[in-house]
Amino acid sequence: MRTTYYEELAALRTQVGDMCGLAADAMEHATHALLGVDLSLAEQVIADHEHIQDMSKRAEGGALKLLALQQPVAGDLRTIIGAIHVGADIERMGALAVHVARIARLRHPECAVPDEVRDCFAEMGARSVELARTAHEVMVSGDPDKAARLNDADDAVDAEHRHLFTMLIDHVWQDGVCSAVDVALLGRFYERFADHAVEIGRRVVFETTGGLPNHKKMA
Amino acid sequence: MRTTYYEELAALRTQVGDMCGLAADAMEHATHALLGVDLSLAEQVIADHEHIQDMSKRAEGGALKLLALQQPVAGDLRTIIGAIHVGADIERMGALAVHVARIARLRHPECAVPDEVRDCFAEMGARSVELARTAHEVMVSGDPDKAARLNDADDAVDAEHRHLFTMLIDHVWQDGVCSAVDVALLGRFYERFADHAVEIGRRVVFETTGGLPNHKKMA
Repeated sequence: MRTTYYEELAALRTQVGDMCGLAADAMEHATHALLGVDLSLAEQVIADHEHIQDMSKRAEGGALKLLALQQPVAGDLRTIIGAIHVGADIERMGALAVHVARIARLRHPECAVPDEVRDCFAEMGARSVELARTAHEVMVSGDPDKAARLNDADDAVDAEHRHLFTMLIDHVWQDGVCSAVDVALLGRFYERFADHAVEIGRRVVFETTGGLPNHKKMA
Repeated sequence: MRTTYYEELAALRTQVGDMCGLAADAMEHATHALLGVDLSLAEQVIADHEHIQDMSKRAEGGALKLLALQQPVAGDLRTIIGAIHVGADIERMGALAVHVARIARLRHPECAVPDEVRDCFAEMGARSVELARTAHEVMVSGDPDKAARLNDADDAVDAEHRHLFTMLIDHVWQDGVCSAVDVALLGRFYERFADHAVEIGRRVVFETTGGLPNHKKMA
């Protein structure tokens, strides 16, 4: 049986959705590797990223094929362009999880995160992964209201990120410069990961309504 | 006279090329603001970013219109999808210049960059801006060889970035935690800015040859 256009479009959506699930897994594992000082888990996150990159390349190939052969318009065109954008966001999310895993690996057998900011990273990690899972959900459901609410969930990550910088800058940091640099960069990686999830939400809104909501903020 | 398809396609290229020039300007000004402790220049970079964001939105709108109305295939299709990707890269480049400007503003009237790493930032700034100008050039010329060589130019930025981290981590950093955090983040912003310029080169190669070169590395 010939695969129909709509089946191919649905397959593209599923493929990009699966990638989003993998990016969520990657950040979940990277956070466990970081806080649990788990070297093999860190290595796994780093090795698995190639899979997300391959999927992203395949998804873009599929999208281009659909554009060339089916010449879609209106909603379908937005779906395909959305898939291209979201694929790029998810690839970056995977890359950010790899950055977290690399710092975990670099500091092993020490923990890169000092005790005083451990809870902060546990919170940022959990919230970021949750954001990615919600982004995956809205990609499947296409629910623009839930997509727009990703912004609010991102506020919690931003609040933790600000808290982290208060700890680093305003308080007397006892853990040395090297640790401060790790913590600053790690904070940035989680914040960017969450921003990409929000961006996916914006794309779902665009896909379903035809209008991009304004950027909430620039990060 | 009705604007023809090829005129619209050329206009899209020019529009995205102009954005790349603006991103190069933004990072050039941000670096001057940072090293010259110039508050009004920092404010200008931050204010001007809205213009790049608006252009990016317009360029994507133009690309979607071309896809819907003209249903291009092969090289033209790749040009349009390339413009969408490159537009997103350039928007990020502008955002990274804003991050540099914000740190300059935050630390004013102090300089965020201590003397011992001043040359390093002058070098990273100059190289990053040069990369963005070369990316702009290859977008206009479509020269895949020059586009592929952006990778080599990026090596110089990466080398400075590594040098910076050696200064921060391995040497005895004398300038305190707050300054170390600023320097680590600033280094990251320049490195990412340069990576986006390289990514634009990859897109030009894809556009002209139909095959994406492999990622040089993941950053």
